[in-house]
Order: sequence, then structure tokens, then C-alpha cells
Amino acid sequence: MYTCTFDRREGWLTSKRKQVAELAGVSEATVSRVMSGVGPIREETKRRVLEAADRLGYTPSAIARSFVTQRSGNVGVMLPVVPKVHLFSAYYFSEILSGIGHAVEKRGYHLLLQFRQADAAPDYESAFRMRKVDGCLILGAKSDVSEARALRTLHEQGWPFCVVGQRFDEPYDQVDADHREGGRLVAEHLLDSGRKRIALVNGPASFSNSVDRRDGFVDRLRSGGVKFDESLEFTGNYSRKSGYALAETLYERRGEFDAVFAANDRMAIGLMQGLKERGLRAGADYALVGYDDSDASRTTDPPLSTVHVPFFEMGVRAAERLLDGIAGDTEEAGPSAQRLETRFVTRESSRLS
Amino acid sequence: MYTCTFDRREGWLTSKRKQVAELAGVSEATVSRVMSGVGPIREETKRRVLEAADRLGYTPSAIARSFVTQRSGNVGVMLPVVPKVHLFSAYYFSEILSGIGHAVEKRGYHLLLQFRQADAAPDYESAFRMRKVDGCLILGAKSDVSEARALRTLHEQGWPFCVVGQRFDEPYDQVDADHREGGRLVAEHLLDSGRKRIALVNGPASFSNSVDRRDGFVDRLRSGGVKFDESLEFTGNYSRKSGYALAETLYERRGEFDAVFAANDRMAIGLMQGLKERGLRAGADYALVGYDDSDASRTTDPPLSTVHVPFFEMGVRAAERLLDGIAGDTEEAGPSAQRLETRFVTRESSRLS
Repeated sequence: MYTCTFDRREGWLTSKRKQVAELAGVSEATVSRVMSGVGPIREETKRRVLEAADRLGYTPSAIARSFVTQRSGNVGVMLPVVPKVHLFSAYYFSEILSGIGHAVEKRGYHLLLQFRQADAAPDYESAFRMRKVDGCLILGAKSDVSEARALRTLHEQGWPFCVVGQRFDEPYDQVDADHREGGRLVAEHLLDSGRKRIALVNGPASFSNSVDRRDGFVDRLRSGGVKFDESLEFTGNYSRKSGYALAETLYERRGEFDAVFAANDRMAIGLMQGLKERGLRAGADYALVGYDDSDASRTTDPPLSTVHVPFFEMGVRAAERLLDGIAGDTEEAGPSAQRLETRFVTRESSRLS
Repeated sequence: MYTCTFDRREGWLTSKRKQVAELAGVSEATVSRVMSGVGPIREETKRRVLEAADRLGYTPSAIARSFVTQRSGNVGVMLPVVPKVHLFSAYYFSEILSGIGHAVEKRGYHLLLQFRQADAAPDYESAFRMRKVDGCLILGAKSDVSEARALRTLHEQGWPFCVVGQRFDEPYDQVDADHREGGRLVAEHLLDSGRKRIALVNGPASFSNSVDRRDGFVDRLRSGGVKFDESLEFTGNYSRKSGYALAETLYERRGEFDAVFAANDRMAIGLMQGLKERGLRAGADYALVGYDDSDASRTTDPPLSTVHVPFFEMGVRAAERLLDGIAGDTEEAGPSAQRLETRFVTRESSRLS
């Protein structure tokens, strides 16, 4: 049987610290401050202490400290690996991550990115078990059995987490935009422009975003006296390529619609391009609306009408909520589901011709 | 004086493992495999072991293991914080990060992101000292004194690192694209199109990329018999806004140039927009060339001629080099400076009118 004891405050052998202090000619408190990185220290003093520590093999690492405090100082970010997609380049992920980075940086945490394979059951718990993270943010989650199980495990074990961009009906912390409202805004804009025969290019139904946008959209059409024609509903996978591929079908059925709502900008841009190659121009021959208000939506020809989604702010909110939870500031309040506002952005692709 | 001893292989008390094995009705080897996450395990077995471990308070965390092996299993990525810029959205960073993520994921490492403030001296070493990372990749480095000092410290201490996207003359591992060649390609294309009076919108000289592009560009003009007119050289900060702001000056001097080379796509796109608002159209009134071959360069009106930079591949190469270094596979070979190839992409913004 082995035993292992640490100095509770320092997470390391006290006697070594004393030796380092003596060698460097400073107090033990100064050694502690240098080693913990807390408080201002003159460069020269820091150098002397670090040299002495090196010579004596004194490395009271974060790991040793964590071993006592059980804190890693890291926030995990769980990301899906989408084959052949350069993940950070997708506007959606990159903006949310920027927001997370912004919030986490301000609170002195680091971000630990973890990727999950598309074909494997997600394992969110092991990063906690391995003490690599103090909490985690889950991006790109889906509505399926293995996802639900992985989240339930986290919840039951009491690990702090927050789901970003996907709605779950369970009492989990979650931050998303109000996509029902976003869908409604699109329908309203198109109805106001006199469009009645509107095709929908949606993303997969395994994302609550797809379902919510569609629900709000169909609902608002109905209350405007227009029945949504389900034969004009198509499904892509949120990539530009999938929008481009659907241009062929939509071109063949060009007489049947006067507007298209694509559930994200990338699909809208692919579709715009595919139809343009066949002689149909967005904003002239048909109205086109995307979703996300990505950088790219501003520079297409014509510029793309879209729904602004506050992705950066979503990342900030989720990280702050998580860090509050880790700090124990939220236990009273119970789980929170934040839905941030979207707004419609009118550009030339859907103007009345 | 305290003592602290671990089971070398497991990083934890051996006797506990035995108890867990008995309670779960499996072998000690199976407990080890579940706890280390190495090798395939049936879900049911895994569940039984984890339950038994929980009941007995057996949590041989990664931290305990790291404490023995001195490995964190993390690769650090050092990123600059650029105020008001959503960092991951900049094509440059997002693509490199995607490549790093791709390579690191395949080798079972996690990515630890660390941000450095624009106004503070970089501190790359403390993440190593704190045993939070086994190696680090440095993005967005500059040519300045504090950067040079931080890198020299890493080098002298023997911490594994690799600089991405910035050239240093010291013997550090580094991966970049060949930007001198990229600048040459731009000059060659414009000379071939009969352009002789070419304005340059460059980024800050603190980035070797800016300097290298300019050198290659000016050099190739000269060998084509054209002297670069330094009064037509302008400096932005690689943001779209800075390109947009320069449109005013360039418009005033519109009689003096027939082409513009902007050192990245974002500045080119801002400039294109600003000049368009004043009635000058890229590809008709002047030739415009950007740099990066970002997504946005394909969807502008007109599409932007540019230089393709293999950012994703740069991230992959840098991460692989670093991981080889961590694994001790590169010590013989010495430091490596990889320069990846660029290529010119002709689009409408620079076609002969």
C-alpha cells in the first residue's frame, strides 16, 4: 500500500519550496507566487526563482495542483467531425467558437477542443473522468439515441455542461437562437413581397434547428393564408455543394415556385450559383432567402437576404453560463434554456423585381 | 519530508484496482483498459467497471497518469487575440486550425487553445511548466523583440514547438507557405496581362508574410522590366475594413494605376466594394488580385483572382511535425523549415477587359 500526501495549498512538497527559496534568495511566498503565476513579479526575480527551481527539480505543475483541487482550468468544447468539411471554416462553428474563446479567455480558462467521430457514439464523460475539463460545451449535437444517452450520463453524474445550438427538452443548460421565430420572419418577408409559392431547402431533421425553422415558417405561411406545398420541400446537408446539387431539380420545377427559402446561407449560395448557371437569377427570376447572415451572404451577387443569428453572442452566453455553473453560482437557479433573438436582413436576392 | 509513489504503469494505487476488478467481476487488466480508454471494451463491461470504480472512489485520472508520465495528452495552440476580430472567422486561422485539429485528432491528442493579448509579451512557456501541454503550435507570431524572446526561451528549454505562418531565421521548426513565390506569381500574372502600373495594398511589415509577398512581387516586376512605384504602396491591417478605407485614397489616384495587388482577400474585397461604390469596377476599370483563395473570394462580384495558400495542409504538417517531435521521432533530423507551394487562381477581377 502506497501513500501520497501533498501540501494542501501548494500541491507539492513543502520542503522543496524552502530549498528553492534559499537558493534563489527570496521568500517562500515569492516562490509560490512565481510558481502559481498569481500576482505581479519582477522579471529578474522570476528568472532567479525559475532557475533555482530547475536546478532542484522543483516543478509544482498545474497537474499537481489540479490533483488536489480537482480543477483542470480547462473548458471542453465538443465538436463533431464532419468528413471533408473544414470545420472551423463553417461560419456557424467558427463564430460560436470565437464567442466561447472570448468569454473563456476573460475568465482565465483554457479551451480544450475534443472531436467526436460522426460514426461513433459520443463520449462526453471521459474528459471529465480524466480530469481534463471542469465543464464542457457541446456543439453540433443531434437528436438521436446515442447523443441523448451521452447527455443523460453527464447530467446524472452532475458534470457541468451546456448545449449550444441544439434544443433538448430535458432540463439541461442550453443556449440557442430562436429559430421558430427566424422561420416566421422569412415567411413574413416573402408574404409581404407577394410570394405565395415558396420552396423550402431544409437541413436534416436530426438538427432541431431544421425542424424549428420549418415549423415557424410553415406556421406563419398558414396564418398568412398560404398553405405550404410539401412537394416543394427538399433536403440538403447544410453544405454549399448540397444546395448546388439541388439546383438541377429546382430548375426542372421552375414554373412551380416564385421564391426559395434555404435553411442556411451555404445552401442558398450553392443553389443561387447552380440556378444562375441555368439562367435563373435570384432577385429577378425568383426570390431567395438564406439563413445565418454569414460573411459570404454579403458578398454574393446579388447579396443574399438572410436571417441574422447571433452566433458569437451564443458562444459567449453558453461559456458564461458554464463558468458560472463551475464556480457554483447557478445551483439555486436550476437549468436555463436561453433563446437569443434573430432578425431578418433584407438584401437584393429577395427584392421585388 | 513526504513521499509520493505511484504504480508506474497505472499511475494509481494498485490495491484499489484489484477491489474494483472483484466488485465488477472482471480482471484487473480489464479495469485498466476501461480506465485508460485503450482498446475495445463492451459497453456492458465498461458500465460495470465504471460503476464499481465510482462506488469505491477509484478515479485514476489522466492527471494522476500525467503526473507519472509527465504527459498531458494536449497540444497547445497559441493564438493572438485581435480586438474586435472574431478570430476563428478569419479564413487564415480557421483553415490552419482545421488542419491542426484533423492531424491531432488522428493521433489521439486534444487541442488546448491559449490566447495571448495583443499588448502583453507572449508567454509560451508557462503552459509547459504547468504540464498543460506536451508541445505547442504558434500561430500569428510577429517579428518583434518580445516574440523572439518567448520563442528563444522555449527553444533553450527544449520544449517542443512549431511556428506556423511566420518565418524565423533561428533553427526552429516552422511551417509556412512560400510567399515570395506567391508574390512572384501575382506580378507574373499582371505583367502577362499587360499591366505595368500596379498599386500594392500590403499588410503590416511585422509579419514576414507581408515582407515576403512584397519581395517576390517587386523582384518579379523588376525582372519583367517594370520598376515598382513605391508611391503606390499602401498599408492595411489585413481586415476588410482597412481595404475599404483605402478605397478613398486609391480612388483619388485612379489615373495612376491599372492594377492593384492586395496582400489578402479580405482587404481586396473591402477595396473592391469601396471602389465599386465610387463607380470603379474590378475586372473592367482596373485589375484586382487578392491573396489566400478564401471562400469569400469565389463569391464576390466579380469573383476575385487570388493566390491559393494551402492553410489546411500547413496545419496538418505543423501538427504532424510537432507530434513526431513529442514522440521523439525527429531528434536526429534537426529543425525543419517547410515552405508549402502556392498557386495562382485566375478569376474575373483581373481578366483583360
